[in-house]
Amino acid sequence: MSKIKIDAFSLLEKIRKQKPLAHHLTNWVTIYDCANIVKVLGASPVMAHAPQEAGEMARLAHSLVLNIGTLTADFVEAMKIAAASANQKGIPVVLDVCGCGATSFRDAKVSQLLGEVKIDIIKGNVSEIARVAGENVKTKGVDASMVEKNMIEIARILSTKRKATVVATGKEDIVTDGVKTYIVKNGHQLLTRVVGTGCMAASVIGTFSAVEEDLAFAATSGLLCFEIAAQIAAKKASGPASFKEKLFDCLFKLDKKTIFSMQRVEKV
Amino acid sequence: MSKIKIDAFSLLEKIRKQKPLAHHLTNWVTIYDCANIVKVLGASPVMAHAPQEAGEMARLAHSLVLNIGTLTADFVEAMKIAAASANQKGIPVVLDVCGCGATSFRDAKVSQLLGEVKIDIIKGNVSEIARVAGENVKTKGVDASMVEKNMIEIARILSTKRKATVVATGKEDIVTDGVKTYIVKNGHQLLTRVVGTGCMAASVIGTFSAVEEDLAFAATSGLLCFEIAAQIAAKKASGPASFKEKLFDCLFKLDKKTIFSMQRVEKV
Amino acid sequence: MSKIKIDAFSLLEKIRKQKPLAHHLTNWVTIYDCANIVKVLGASPVMAHAPQEAGEMARLAHSLVLNIGTLTADFVEAMKIAAASANQKGIPVVLDVCGCGATSFRDAKVSQLLGEVKIDIIKGNVSEIARVAGENVKTKGVDASMVEKNMIEIARILSTKRKATVVATGKEDIVTDGVKTYIVKNGHQLLTRVVGTGCMAASVIGTFSAVEEDLAFAATSGLLCFEIAAQIAAKKASGPASFKEKLFDCLFKLDKKTIFSMQRVEKV
Repeated sequence: MSKIKIDAFSLLEKIRKQKPLAHHLTNWVTIYDCANIVKVLGASPVMAHAPQEAGEMARLAHSLVLNIGTLTADFVEAMKIAAASANQKGIPVVLDVCGCGATSFRDAKVSQLLGEVKIDIIKGNVSEIARVAGENVKTKGVDASMVEKNMIEIARILSTKRKATVVATGKEDIVTDGVKTYIVKNGHQLLTRVVGTGCMAASVIGTFSAVEEDLAFAATSGLLCFEIAAQIAAKKASGPASFKEKLFDCLFKLDKKTIFSMQRVEKV
Repeated sequence: MSKIKIDAFSLLEKIRKQKPLAHHLTNWVTIYDCANIVKVLGASPVMAHAPQEAGEMARLAHSLVLNIGTLTADFVEAMKIAAASANQKGIPVVLDVCGCGATSFRDAKVSQLLGEVKIDIIKGNVSEIARVAGENVKTKGVDASMVEKNMIEIARILSTKRKATVVATGKEDIVTDGVKTYIVKNGHQLLTRVVGTGCMAASVIGTFSAVEEDLAFAATSGLLCFEIAAQIAAKKASGPASFKEKLFDCLFKLDKKTIFSMQRVEKV
Repeated sequence: MSKIKIDAFSLLEKIRKQKPLAHHLTNWVTIYDCANIVKVLGASPVMAHAPQEAGEMARLAHSLVLNIGTLTADFVEAMKIAAASANQKGIPVVLDVCGCGATSFRDAKVSQLLGEVKIDIIKGNVSEIARVAGENVKTKGVDASMVEKNMIEIARILSTKRKATVVATGKEDIVTDGVKTYIVKNGHQLLTRVVGTGCMAASVIGTFSAVEEDLAFAATSGLLCFEIAAQIAAKKASGPASFKEKLFDCLFKLDKKTIFSMQRVEKV
């Protein structure tokens, strides 16, 4: 493992210039924050889940973010339509396996999505990713629980098996495309004290993947920017709600120098 | 009626330690705030409404919060599945009768829920509770209108009839289990100037009821903490939106001494 | 074109006194902000989309706001029920044609709504309005793209054709009832950097139209108040998220003098 510096800002700059459209089929809890985080990055979010337009909207978009936080059977069908369309166009599809492991319904639907459409980035917290990888863990609602086994190895095997970049978030985040693996050591404890930061991270990753073909690099860059903004925000916050507000403001204004100096990444 | 001090902090401390899971089937307007208020208390929220998983998720949870703010027929069916599962497990079920009295559809669905599953805590503003109790009032949308009759008596009768703890919020809140009745005199006018505070109160009550079997004590403790945080927040706020942010931050940091010194409760 | 001053405050004062009920069938992304903006104006929001109660709720209301941001076929059917009820009662119906032009499904549903119920105010950004007017533009998700043609003329023709007041928002907003046309030159660039400001503007217009029969005057007054609050908020903000919080707080406290002195309106 070696410490490196990556040029995450170059992608943020691309986002701000190209203003890609990130189409979402996401959950009803954090849908606003998912849209807004895309917006403050300088991109355009759109949320459209009617089966009659999900595919057409995906064809207009530059990336697609799926999040099963409040899934229903119909909603997953619309996800498949959108993802099939994204696959055909060749834009990246991110799946946030939010709450996977909590119920057999979630597990079954994640399995269906992974089997029936091409998912380019599988994103979850460590226990969710372990579950998707076939490990015997039980998720507590949508919050992370402990995973004993070597997560890097689990993520790598899942990546190879599913031909997807895998992002497992936690105190340290793992991003792997099966060949190269990044460990992101930025972030702040307050990210776990406010609802929606995991979903927002997925939307950030989706936005970064819209401007960069190397998806592990894109996901790592997105996480870095998000978590560096969180660290700056945390210093100014007086609790989880003011933290969240400042997180958006800081991400909006994030510059090259800050990203470069604050990033803590290792490559395996 | 006599002034008392209750040990609301002991329950807040339990929540912070035990981190109970509060499952919600709630409305699409305030769903984020409901989840986030549970989170800042130190507990875990989960929102899952697919009929295929609502029951299984309830079995993982420590309390269940139902809120009919944006109900549909299907959604109420999912509520019944979740509640039946909660009843079987023996965890408390809170029903926020949000907007009851506004339309006959709402009245009918509340009546169905109360008839078909066991609701442990019925929560609403005074006009909604009066409506559920069979009084002839008309709710204006989801906001409270005046109730002439003696609300304490109405709440008590409803409590006895439905074998449930009843919470009627207003300038002063009434909490009764039919035997003992608490009046909570904390709170702040700004709570009525921002959307979602009633829904959040229900989620707070649901979270407190996850760690305490005496549901009137749990509900009263929850309301106290929420409303004391509101009073502190109001002093720092420059309007409804900054008030709401500070409400979350203050609740997150609320301590024993503040709760004890600021609480204004009476027992009947 | 001539500069004028309009008495927008008189309508804000009416809202604060009469507290009209603004019924919404809106999208799941910005539903909270739509409700909350109505609340900070001093009015009451209600969101109810079940077909069994959408009509009854509209009969209780003083205006109806429809927003197709996350439309489905069923949801549009509920909109029609609510609008038919609003039409019968004679309360104004606002349609935010959010994302119109992005997919053929959206175009078809907007066309259905305009054909089957009476829409009193058609509101969108310039590219959406151009699309509804039959111009050959393509909307990028839900964000505005450039329109070449004379927007005032396009809005006027649409107004006459649909017998509706038309509101086309942009750097300068156009409000026309076919006879008189207002140009609102207030606002701030930050309004475009946060999700939901367009939807909130529609809810503000819906609230103002609940207390004033001259709908062009109502819509112009609403936009003025909203955009003046935005200008004040922007001065205090350190980014899009703090801007949004301050926007709510500023609108809550907006007074006659400020509205009068800051407004920049022209009449054509």
